[in-house]
Amino acid sequence: MNILWFMCDQLRYDYLGCAGHPHIRTPNFDSVAAKGVRFNHAYCQSPKCGPSRMSAYTGRYVRSHGASTNFAALRVGEPTLGDHLITVGVDPVLIGKTHMNADVEGMKRLGIDEGSDIGIRTAECGFIPYVRDDGLHPHVGKDDPDYFEYVRSHGYEADNPWADLANAAEDENGNVVSGWFMRHARKPARIPAHLSESAYITDRTLQFMQGTLKDRPWVAHVSYIKPHWPFIAPAPYNDMYDSSQVLPAVREDHELAPRNSVVRSFQNEKYSTAFHRQEVRDTVIPTYMGLITQIDDEIGRILDYLKESGQDKDTMIILSSDHGDYLGDHWLSEKQLFHDPSVRVPLIIYDPRDEANKTRGTISDTLVELIDVAPTILEVYSGTPLPHIFEGESLIPALHSGSNTLRDYVVSECDYSEDNARRDLKHGPRECKIRMIADKRWKLVQYEKDYPQLFDRLNDPNELTDIAIEREHQDVLLDMHNKLFEWARNPKANICTSDTRITQSDEAWKFYDSRALAGFPIGYWSEDEFEREVKARSAFLKKKCEEIKEP
Amino acid sequence: MNILWFMCDQLRYDYLGCAGHPHIRTPNFDSVAAKGVRFNHAYCQSPKCGPSRMSAYTGRYVRSHGASTNFAALRVGEPTLGDHLITVGVDPVLIGKTHMNADVEGMKRLGIDEGSDIGIRTAECGFIPYVRDDGLHPHVGKDDPDYFEYVRSHGYEADNPWADLANAAEDENGNVVSGWFMRHARKPARIPAHLSESAYITDRTLQFMQGTLKDRPWVAHVSYIKPHWPFIAPAPYNDMYDSSQVLPAVREDHELAPRNSVVRSFQNEKYSTAFHRQEVRDTVIPTYMGLITQIDDEIGRILDYLKESGQDKDTMIILSSDHGDYLGDHWLSEKQLFHDPSVRVPLIIYDPRDEANKTRGTISDTLVELIDVAPTILEVYSGTPLPHIFEGESLIPALHSGSNTLRDYVVSECDYSEDNARRDLKHGPRECKIRMIADKRWKLVQYEKDYPQLFDRLNDPNELTDIAIEREHQDVLLDMHNKLFEWARNPKANICTSDTRITQSDEAWKFYDSRALAGFPIGYWSEDEFEREVKARSAFLKKKCEEIKEP
Repeated sequence: MNILWFMCDQLRYDYLGCAGHPHIRTPNFDSVAAKGVRFNHAYCQSPKCGPSRMSAYTGRYVRSHGASTNFAALRVGEPTLGDHLITVGVDPVLIGKTHMNADVEGMKRLGIDEGSDIGIRTAECGFIPYVRDDGLHPHVGKDDPDYFEYVRSHGYEADNPWADLANAAEDENGNVVSGWFMRHARKPARIPAHLSESAYITDRTLQFMQGTLKDRPWVAHVSYIKPHWPFIAPAPYNDMYDSSQVLPAVREDHELAPRNSVVRSFQNEKYSTAFHRQEVRDTVIPTYMGLITQIDDEIGRILDYLKESGQDKDTMIILSSDHGDYLGDHWLSEKQLFHDPSVRVPLIIYDPRDEANKTRGTISDTLVELIDVAPTILEVYSGTPLPHIFEGESLIPALHSGSNTLRDYVVSECDYSEDNARRDLKHGPRECKIRMIADKRWKLVQYEKDYPQLFDRLNDPNELTDIAIEREHQDVLLDMHNKLFEWARNPKANICTSDTRITQSDEAWKFYDSRALAGFPIGYWSEDEFEREVKARSAFLKKKCEEIKEP
Repeated sequence: MNILWFMCDQLRYDYLGCAGHPHIRTPNFDSVAAKGVRFNHAYCQSPKCGPSRMSAYTGRYVRSHGASTNFAALRVGEPTLGDHLITVGVDPVLIGKTHMNADVEGMKRLGIDEGSDIGIRTAECGFIPYVRDDGLHPHVGKDDPDYFEYVRSHGYEADNPWADLANAAEDENGNVVSGWFMRHARKPARIPAHLSESAYITDRTLQFMQGTLKDRPWVAHVSYIKPHWPFIAPAPYNDMYDSSQVLPAVREDHELAPRNSVVRSFQNEKYSTAFHRQEVRDTVIPTYMGLITQIDDEIGRILDYLKESGQDKDTMIILSSDHGDYLGDHWLSEKQLFHDPSVRVPLIIYDPRDEANKTRGTISDTLVELIDVAPTILEVYSGTPLPHIFEGESLIPALHSGSNTLRDYVVSECDYSEDNARRDLKHGPRECKIRMIADKRWKLVQYEKDYPQLFDRLNDPNELTDIAIEREHQDVLLDMHNKLFEWARNPKANICTSDTRITQSDEAWKFYDSRALAGFPIGYWSEDEFEREVKARSAFLKKKCEEIKEP
């Protein structure tokens, strides 16, 4: 079996037809949901591209892999899904974005040749890079992406095809305008849809799948750059939705005076204040929706190819996103913080095997984390779940039996040391930590340098009212606090020792002092005592054997 | 300047003359204390050889480096003091024990050649191994230590010089008996003192120091295997102390019925029950003391050489141990748990530089951790304290100005997954975590699967009474609990990003939107707005310049 693991960038959990959005059209997402399982309570491990993805690709929380900001490198030696797949004979192929920053210093320290296969995979978060493209190419220079060449090979010329064509438009006078400026969001990009970034990623994926016969199974991470900003789409997607289809912002005036200064600082960010204005929402959100439908169409091309080539019965499909986008909800935009529009993600998995027949088309309410994807994928190829490394859990039981008991709470983290909030509030570089812990009812957001927030999602499903200060909820606050402490003190750090390694001598210990027989007879006063001990253990062994013979 | 970092194995904090032991003779430890600083509240990060040393050599807590048991490998890529020293042009040399288990799988995954310089250092915890010897050689075979050869080269022959000579004795009939059996502890080892393991480590150290001219400064980790068991000493050290000099066991009957099952399980270990008997203590402890005096003599030989060769003014000396030994206190022996005899360690530092003149011969009450040694050493050679990697703090301020404000609490951890307690109590391999947090008055020991312990060291300096259950101490329990939570949620995981890297654009942000100028103008509605923003920032810059000109 092969696996296609699709990831979108900044796609909210609720902007899909199958997730209940009343206007958006995502027939291909919906079709995968109809034959797979849609996990309706999936959370990313950091509402930021880099750390969220490093968690997804390692199956480990941010506090464990350490790459807590968008600029932070993933430390060399941090084991990735790609490493585990290579070990079991599966190729982990990358087509698109990872946000990986290589630990160049660490690689140098360990003498790893950047040009070797291992060096390349180490720098690419464990993936074999068929295409690496993180999007966002405002500058031209020596690191021009393959996408520039791709656009040019189709007859479109520009100094910077990304900035001048794919992320630019033309105004009423024919002047070229930049896609960065959101007032242009409804204008069509200066490139046909079939040459846009999303189409490019699809083309390269099809090229990979149609390429030379593979002698090993593969997992392809197909990682689209959209609907991440700049908010500009090619025709017809720029004009597919209009402001009448923009849902009202989920926010109340009282939220503009939060007790928490970090929240206030993010609300004051330029990107947030822009979305305080309805004009911005009415202009940008239809395009955000168009970009999503475009990706849906692109995924459709790949699904069609799977069907045509007869691969649909032996290809698992995973649809996901790295985090959401506030789009003005709670007076915020972008992501970073922990309301559901930011931290909750779509996750749909189609397992073609018969064992999954029972759950097809179902919605799972299990609390799921994005770190569950890596162990799920590994379990397809190997019986070894690596519970000493992965902090996520395999979703195979949920896919095969509808098991609903994965975990009691989800956790997500944010490090705002590279955000203006740190500068605003004069917090130290290592103090900018926020952690969210949530079950289906309660959500606690704990700030290293600020007041906590608590939301009651049963009585306040939109998370509008922080009740952390209310007397009657102090017990809940303490309970969630204790659960967060439990999580915090139990990182999986001893990644070199498997559970089997630990328990391997347990049987032996029942019959003799293993330590002594290994040459370390600790605690014995005399040879006699040692002799007696061995005899006593032998008697036990003899009795055991008799019990087995005559139960 | 060069540095000699001595480490003993299983040397209690209080078994030194300068630490107040009424009988033991350690004139060389005392002489270093007299010209340096003796840190009287130093704690190891795990009362077990392996994890304690991995913390010492990385400057990081066990929960961060992950090697939490004696068999656990240190993950490849975990940065060590040796790595940092190499970077600043200093050779980190090893002579003796580290308890390092190489992450062979990880090295293979990263293509690191085990035979290369980098491969050797990676497998040796960052050190250049002049001699690696962890002691404990019950078996002969292909991995025979250099020590076998050393003994033989001095004319002593045996199949296993370690087991048959250095750790064996002869009974009254001339039969060879094993040093494992503690009843023989007072008999002399079958080897002269100058060929024992401690002498061997000293000889190799002198050989290293006298060897070919070094063109780079060096830090030599001189790491003795003693006074760790087997408890057997060569003459005259076997007979240097007698049972009249054995201090009474610090224990009370009520401690034998602890609320905590993990403690009870360790009290029931063979090595503990042995020390419940006074006969065992009276036999073993004099030899334990003899082994310490022997190491003191050995260190004296090196101190003499420093003086003779004129190196005493440019060689820093650090005396330390990896953990203590209960020796029957609290009905325990060995280490593992968190009473002071186990978790508190000796730490004496002599800094020959004039800046340290003010503190010579003083005792520091600062709360110190063994992870402070690595940053202290690095600071000698480099201004870069690496606070994003080290979780310890440099002791240079304490050495130079007597600064007494290093930290509010110390933390130490134990993972008993490889101990009988796990098997006894049927705890899972990942549940066997204990953490201690202590300030000078209170000590909380928190067990993942058991009741906490709390000690009031002011009113109960011997930690005889667990008061965790007492109503009037619930506030303290909560306070220590909260401090442990603070510690637990703030590991230094983002080891690839320095503070400087984070704050480098702060100045720029005061004058313009750095993000925008880097090519990512997020949140702008229009070109006009962008223009206005740039102008506003320029006006701010202009005003700033004027302020500077005319304050």
